[in-house]
Amino acid sequence: MDAIMHIESALETAAALAASDDAPPRLAAAIRYAIFPGGARIRPRLCLAVSAACGAQNLGASAAAAGAIELLHCASLAHDDLPCFDDAPTRRGKPSVHAAFGEALAVLAGDAMIVMAFEAIARAFMDRPHLLPPLVQTIARAAGMPSGIAAGQGYESEPQLARSQYQRAKTGSLFVAATVAGALAAGADGAPWRMLGEGLGEAYQIADDIRDVASSPEAIGKPVGRDAALGRPSAALELGVDRAVALLKRLTREAVDSIPACPGADWLKAQVLIETLRVLPEELLRRAA
Amino acid sequence: MDAIMHIESALETAAALAASDDAPPRLAAAIRYAIFPGGARIRPRLCLAVSAACGAQNLGASAAAAGAIELLHCASLAHDDLPCFDDAPTRRGKPSVHAAFGEALAVLAGDAMIVMAFEAIARAFMDRPHLLPPLVQTIARAAGMPSGIAAGQGYESEPQLARSQYQRAKTGSLFVAATVAGALAAGADGAPWRMLGEGLGEAYQIADDIRDVASSPEAIGKPVGRDAALGRPSAALELGVDRAVALLKRLTREAVDSIPACPGADWLKAQVLIETLRVLPEELLRRAA
Repeated sequence: MDAIMHIESALETAAALAASDDAPPRLAAAIRYAIFPGGARIRPRLCLAVSAACGAQNLGASAAAAGAIELLHCASLAHDDLPCFDDAPTRRGKPSVHAAFGEALAVLAGDAMIVMAFEAIARAFMDRPHLLPPLVQTIARAAGMPSGIAAGQGYESEPQLARSQYQRAKTGSLFVAATVAGALAAGADGAPWRMLGEGLGEAYQIADDIRDVASSPEAIGKPVGRDAALGRPSAALELGVDRAVALLKRLTREAVDSIPACPGADWLKAQVLIETLRVLPEELLRRAA
Repeated sequence: MDAIMHIESALETAAALAASDDAPPRLAAAIRYAIFPGGARIRPRLCLAVSAACGAQNLGASAAAAGAIELLHCASLAHDDLPCFDDAPTRRGKPSVHAAFGEALAVLAGDAMIVMAFEAIARAFMDRPHLLPPLVQTIARAAGMPSGIAAGQGYESEPQLARSQYQRAKTGSLFVAATVAGALAAGADGAPWRMLGEGLGEAYQIADDIRDVASSPEAIGKPVGRDAALGRPSAALELGVDRAVALLKRLTREAVDSIPACPGADWLKAQVLIETLRVLPEELLRRAA
């Protein structure tokens, strides 16, 4: 089974459990809608890749951890798109969850997916419970306060908004969780993997800023020009597109250089480079080559 | 330290951690506002009482589990009061979280408190990780889908709403989590404690229905008459107040009779009876005596 199949299978297991028994059907449908079909599944693929590079024996359990990361991501998108935040009508090329199911079910779907993330991990590591304290704490730190996704969103309600702090919490935290949880799920030490997550999170945010300035809604499946419209910090707006692309490339190189010694280090380095290039519009890569 | 001090201390630890480092101050304030001052803390006190009755050695860890139950409750209230659900202006005698901090911070505070619940448990049981799989699964089941608080709220978006199913998920699930997690935290088997939680959850919901019909906003710190106004299922509306009070008393007796053999069974039975009587307006107790 390749990585994406492991991840989709873990997400399918979680969604099926959430829809079991007497689950309210419309909420179950909203959850499924929020999860499938996915975007690029960048964070869970990073998590699983780190786990594999660390020599994980049980890729099913690692995929559950990767799926938990993706569930938190899907939850944050469902809430982020709500009228009281971005009021985004579309996401991944289709109506956002609240546009399709209403605000109430979008709030509840997000809540339920946060819970599903922790439940999936508890289930997958039942036979290795000593891994649960660091795993639960790693994904909790990425999702909540004081420095996870909720914190990142919370900075938007502050009068002063510092770009790096905001983006580290809103985007970077889940990349850090992906690399650290990937290592932990393989039974390795998580701490040395923080730097890779931090670097890739920052690189990804800059790529996202660039796409918001330089792409079309058709190419990225969501509205563009939102950062300027909403007055949000953006590296592409602050630096200009060309310098932002150069920064992205530097950050990616540094992230790759930070990969700790492990059985699959060379393979992982190649994977990370391929992935980073995939997220940018082709014409930008050519321009900055 | 008595029970309520243990619980407040666990909640204080969680709130302080959420507000640490560079946490966005307004979100940290919204979280604190949602947790303190508490209501009757019925669910965490039940959790801690069961733990004590089971002979728990480490009441601090049990209090963390109890605090997690309360955090999930506070999260559900913050989201439940949102304009897209009940649109409640007040809660516990003060403005609701969204009325005081706005919708965005109320959504995020709820999200963060769900995460804090799992984090608190992972931290408290780091030295007994074998207890984490059942504990995480117990509180996940109570909070999410297919039969937890989110599911209970989700039933409100279904065309047909069956009272018992709805209330079992929306209210009963957290009472079941309180009794089961209390036993688990003491190292005991959780399953025999489900029935106590189910019975008390149902009794509490009926008491709540009765108060919504027969109390004043001043007495219970939130608006009354909401069930009728919102067309929600209510035992007091369906049966009339006197028969609802009689049902409440019968359910409480049955719940008490279900308490499994444990070192503190007699003490726990007395506690449960005292607690149940506390939640009803005095004149109703006299009327139905």
